[in-house]
Amino acid sequence: MFITFEGLDASGKSTQAELTRARFLEHGKKVVYIREPGGTHLGEKIREILLDIQNSIDPVAEVFLFSAARAQLVREVIRPALARHEIVICDRYVDSTTTYQGYGRQIPMDSIHAVNRLAIADVLPDLTFFIDIPIDEIERRQKTAGKITDRMERSGRDFFERTRQGYIELSESCNRLKVIRGERTPDTIFSEIWSIIEKEIPSSSSG
Amino acid sequence: MFITFEGLDASGKSTQAELTRARFLEHGKKVVYIREPGGTHLGEKIREILLDIQNSIDPVAEVFLFSAARAQLVREVIRPALARHEIVICDRYVDSTTTYQGYGRQIPMDSIHAVNRLAIADVLPDLTFFIDIPIDEIERRQKTAGKITDRMERSGRDFFERTRQGYIELSESCNRLKVIRGERTPDTIFSEIWSIIEKEIPSSSSG
Repeated sequence: MFITFEGLDASGKSTQAELTRARFLEHGKKVVYIREPGGTHLGEKIREILLDIQNSIDPVAEVFLFSAARAQLVREVIRPALARHEIVICDRYVDSTTTYQGYGRQIPMDSIHAVNRLAIADVLPDLTFFIDIPIDEIERRQKTAGKITDRMERSGRDFFERTRQGYIELSESCNRLKVIRGERTPDTIFSEIWSIIEKEIPSSSSG
Repeated sequence: MFITFEGLDASGKSTQAELTRARFLEHGKKVVYIREPGGTHLGEKIREILLDIQNSIDPVAEVFLFSAARAQLVREVIRPALARHEIVICDRYVDSTTTYQGYGRQIPMDSIHAVNRLAIADVLPDLTFFIDIPIDEIERRQKTAGKITDRMERSGRDFFERTRQGYIELSESCNRLKVIRGERTPDTIFSEIWSIIEKEIPSSSSG
């Protein structure tokens, strides 16, 4: 069982990924939890490069860096864990490339799809939760937290509007993607997420 | 004018790239000289990762790492230099991915082509010299130099046979690729290379 969490920064997706992990652990499940990019030695090195804003990285190079980390992650961690019948939870996965780089950066979608196919081979999530909050709310949350992310400052609001729109369009064309309204308390959101998991994957709460 | 040098490790391609650069400089040309992966801050970081054999990198991740470095190089260095009418010489470029990862690692060629197209956009070399020497000769050279490269040891002879075959097939289907017999002295090889450059690019030796 492979579950991913998607959404813009500050949408609360990481909180929900963590809550989901904790609930599975309570049920005695083995869980592999990953945040992208990362989860492998190579992935962490790539994460360092990507977080180092002194590198001004071209959007196409960025696609390839995320995809390198993901290709390694799929083959080294995700596929083996799924073969052992463990639960894999990823904070971001292939949809982030489609939305951020395809919709957001406007890299041609046929290239994005070809790169994604090569990166993940056939390893698609069973369920993907897109935690959706409006851009205004993201800006408000980031101001409250005393930080506007570097990415937000550098990329501008239009970029995030397009990226959010990408998630919405993907959700419309893809059954595994569930849109979750993010302007509620974490507990309320998690109740909805867990009820979807239980419905879609009936064995999820059996020990 | 954009010239690339290709071939297996120890084929002598770097020597020829350097000789070509020196000759252009003698003629008073401005030359940008790059070895791949590298040539940008991002590229050098990626080079470090790739040379660190402690990272056991999946072949698909490797494709993306080389392509990330190349995408950055094309946009940050090569395209601007060509726009300034400078000469760009690359020690390895897009054909290395086609041959090493496509033919050698047997990653599906349609994926390789899609990745290459995204990485280089429309920036193809005017001339590419493939310095060809048989695998036996490469092994002999490496033994003489007291080193078998890590890559050679890990990948096995078949990998290099397939990679060489890839270069030969590319040369047959692609006019810009010139096969240069590498079992001769560097000076003899360079004479042939320079005569091809002068023929293909008539202004190459005018100051």
